[in-house]
Amino acid sequence: MDDTTPGSHSSRLVVIGGDAAGMSAASQARRLKGPGELEIVAFERGHYASYSACGIPYWVGGEVTGPEELIARTPEEHRARGIDLRMRTEVTEIDVAGQRVRARDVESGAESWTPYDHLVIATGARPIRPDMPGADASGVHGVQTLDDGRALLDTLARARGRRAVVVGAGYIGVEMAEALINRGYEVTVVNRGREPMSTLDPDMGRLVHRAMEGLGIRMVNDTEVTEVRTDAEGHVRAVVTPDAEYPADVVVLGIGVRPETSLARAAGLPLGEHGGLLTDRAMRVRGHENVWAGGDCVEVLDLVSGRERYIALGTHANKHGQVIGTNVGGDYATFPGVVGTAVSKVCDLEIARTGLREKDAHRAGLRFVTATIESTSRAGYYPDASPMTVKMLAERRTGRLLGVQIVGREGAGKRVDIAAVALTAGMTVDQMTALDLGYAPPFSPVWDPVLVAARKAAKAVRDS
Amino acid sequence: MDDTTPGSHSSRLVVIGGDAAGMSAASQARRLKGPGELEIVAFERGHYASYSACGIPYWVGGEVTGPEELIARTPEEHRARGIDLRMRTEVTEIDVAGQRVRARDVESGAESWTPYDHLVIATGARPIRPDMPGADASGVHGVQTLDDGRALLDTLARARGRRAVVVGAGYIGVEMAEALINRGYEVTVVNRGREPMSTLDPDMGRLVHRAMEGLGIRMVNDTEVTEVRTDAEGHVRAVVTPDAEYPADVVVLGIGVRPETSLARAAGLPLGEHGGLLTDRAMRVRGHENVWAGGDCVEVLDLVSGRERYIALGTHANKHGQVIGTNVGGDYATFPGVVGTAVSKVCDLEIARTGLREKDAHRAGLRFVTATIESTSRAGYYPDASPMTVKMLAERRTGRLLGVQIVGREGAGKRVDIAAVALTAGMTVDQMTALDLGYAPPFSPVWDPVLVAARKAAKAVRDS
Repeated sequence: MDDTTPGSHSSRLVVIGGDAAGMSAASQARRLKGPGELEIVAFERGHYASYSACGIPYWVGGEVTGPEELIARTPEEHRARGIDLRMRTEVTEIDVAGQRVRARDVESGAESWTPYDHLVIATGARPIRPDMPGADASGVHGVQTLDDGRALLDTLARARGRRAVVVGAGYIGVEMAEALINRGYEVTVVNRGREPMSTLDPDMGRLVHRAMEGLGIRMVNDTEVTEVRTDAEGHVRAVVTPDAEYPADVVVLGIGVRPETSLARAAGLPLGEHGGLLTDRAMRVRGHENVWAGGDCVEVLDLVSGRERYIALGTHANKHGQVIGTNVGGDYATFPGVVGTAVSKVCDLEIARTGLREKDAHRAGLRFVTATIESTSRAGYYPDASPMTVKMLAERRTGRLLGVQIVGREGAGKRVDIAAVALTAGMTVDQMTALDLGYAPPFSPVWDPVLVAARKAAKAVRDS
Repeated sequence: MDDTTPGSHSSRLVVIGGDAAGMSAASQARRLKGPGELEIVAFERGHYASYSACGIPYWVGGEVTGPEELIARTPEEHRARGIDLRMRTEVTEIDVAGQRVRARDVESGAESWTPYDHLVIATGARPIRPDMPGADASGVHGVQTLDDGRALLDTLARARGRRAVVVGAGYIGVEMAEALINRGYEVTVVNRGREPMSTLDPDMGRLVHRAMEGLGIRMVNDTEVTEVRTDAEGHVRAVVTPDAEYPADVVVLGIGVRPETSLARAAGLPLGEHGGLLTDRAMRVRGHENVWAGGDCVEVLDLVSGRERYIALGTHANKHGQVIGTNVGGDYATFPGVVGTAVSKVCDLEIARTGLREKDAHRAGLRFVTATIESTSRAGYYPDASPMTVKMLAERRTGRLLGVQIVGREGAGKRVDIAAVALTAGMTVDQMTALDLGYAPPFSPVWDPVLVAARKAAKAVRDS
């Protein structure tokens, strides 16, 4: 059975994926065009739409009481705004030439084609599952969706012991380590890299490593999980590496995600080197006038290196959706790109980065200097001034800021925004030394740590 | 008696004023030139040098235990680095044509001339004392110097009652109100403006007003103190306004400061409309090759309005000193100007501003739109997410950011740095909507409050 084609007076927007990018696009298009002008149909294969996946670690950790707190807008609320959101309905094919998608009701298996005038692909990401024995055992969990979060909490409620192994030490890995510590678990993090947080240079990751150990987290670096061992009932029992075996009552996989672009690939749409969809600045899929894409399934332009990157992050997904909805709604907006800002925390340790790491700069063919300084979050004499390490990369000769990494306690993380704006503006580190940043003893030393780093980096540029 | 003239092999730098700007200049010049090349003499009329005046409210409030914590470097430490810092020695005349200054030993009254090759004027600011009966009574205190702080603490130790009146509701006024609340005082703030914090627009000052009242501070706006009444021993007893009388055991004056430029004025050096010294970008006094000035005695270029402003703030003084010392030391540095960033707090309320207020924009002949939004410091579902109000001004037509004001709790204040960098870079509010700011639920909603304000301001620009 086919949906009816759009009436002569209205066009139809079809959205694949009911989370941040897709529903932001739908909502913004709806703000600009009423139901008489634009029909909006959105397909979501899961049980939840419009939720904050970034909040899952805090739900698991107990800071957030239930999944409903993570839901920005319910399906009913979307429908009340004139968005025909169809839950548990999976799109199985995009027919670009025919301007239609085929969708299947997950419960009944019934399939039908829906024609579109505009298509938004917001299929998100899928977690990387290691290819090894036991990877799908009971008690092994990803934390990508609210369904994943609920399954993990069920395992924790039934677990016989209190030993957790987290595989991967990126931001999901460290956030899940914190969540499990908060749940009273004995936590081991097994990590392929030299240090945790491979989004930082290893010298800065080392600071995270030490802080995690200080929190009682066992950190095992430079190794690979080769097997998940199970008991007689098929439940996880231990995680095995080439050198050791770590008993585990629960295993959390935090080894990253890949763009979910199998539909797009099958439809012949352009994918980049990281497997994400390629778009123009208006978030239109390259070469396709009426196909748009955003969120965790697209690659984005890195404004610092000038190359495409893959970054799965809710804040980008929301911006993409906003831009797409504005354009589909007949107005104009663009997403110029990213500088690679990310911030996370493990207990009271704040970890932030923006721009290029040393290896990114090498890869982009850039010659650079680095400067690392230690300072404090407040004036040294003010109560609760806490130490903070700032590392800065600047291009040789030009002095252009290339990247900043910050590790510290309260007040460290969001300081990275200073560098994010400076990177966007193409500032040099010398220009940054004169920035008029907020100063008062409870907020900053008289020289903000970012300024101290900029001064040292500017000197390194002059001396290079 | 005259000092010996500098020897043939070295030149002499004379610094007037031993606090942030002066001693930063001296220290930086010393880093670049050894004592064989450059002799450095610095005169300070007070008992302390190189201290954080911004820390005085926290000393009075008890967060900082003693004045020694506020001293960045002692006179002995300066001397050990080859800086001849002469305490309790007041410069009484600058002879620009003769390249010499006359200084008087405050204790002995002895005077002598000291010749210079380079002169740094860092005479700071003097607090505005209202011209009214009782303004100099015992128990009435400014909080400009460490000596002031000590005198105020002596009064508090001896005070018979616990009623304090703070005159003025700028950042010193609100910080002193907090300090006195922390000391267990019943605090009344008497303020000439419509709302406290006249560095904000009144609609934002209103939020500070309400929060101060919530803290138990009595806030009296729109009035003027006409008299300070004293008891038989000449100690303060009450503060009088046209409408009322406020009993007081101690009075703190926080009605602002003026540049201390009487020496410079007498020497015929160029002063601006706010009474501060005028310099070029290298911090050289205009028209004088070897006379430099920095800190609270100079006017600075406002990069947003293109006009000179007067801002007494330690962070600028330190930068000025650094720039002067670099230039005197034979290298090159400039201070390009300010955007007017300031941050302060009263108990857990954070107050921040940068750029132009509505009246500054009017005065500069700019047409503008405003946007005010409410958001939260963290994702709404994350524990301790606290409300935050952000007001943004943008120029009509161009959409250029003109100013930002933020009032909120933890995490509000330093967010103003995002706007400070954007102002420096000349960004439009539309460009700001795409800024790649740090996002994770413990740090920010998925749309940072600054981005929410930028979106609303961008819409206001389009609609204007």
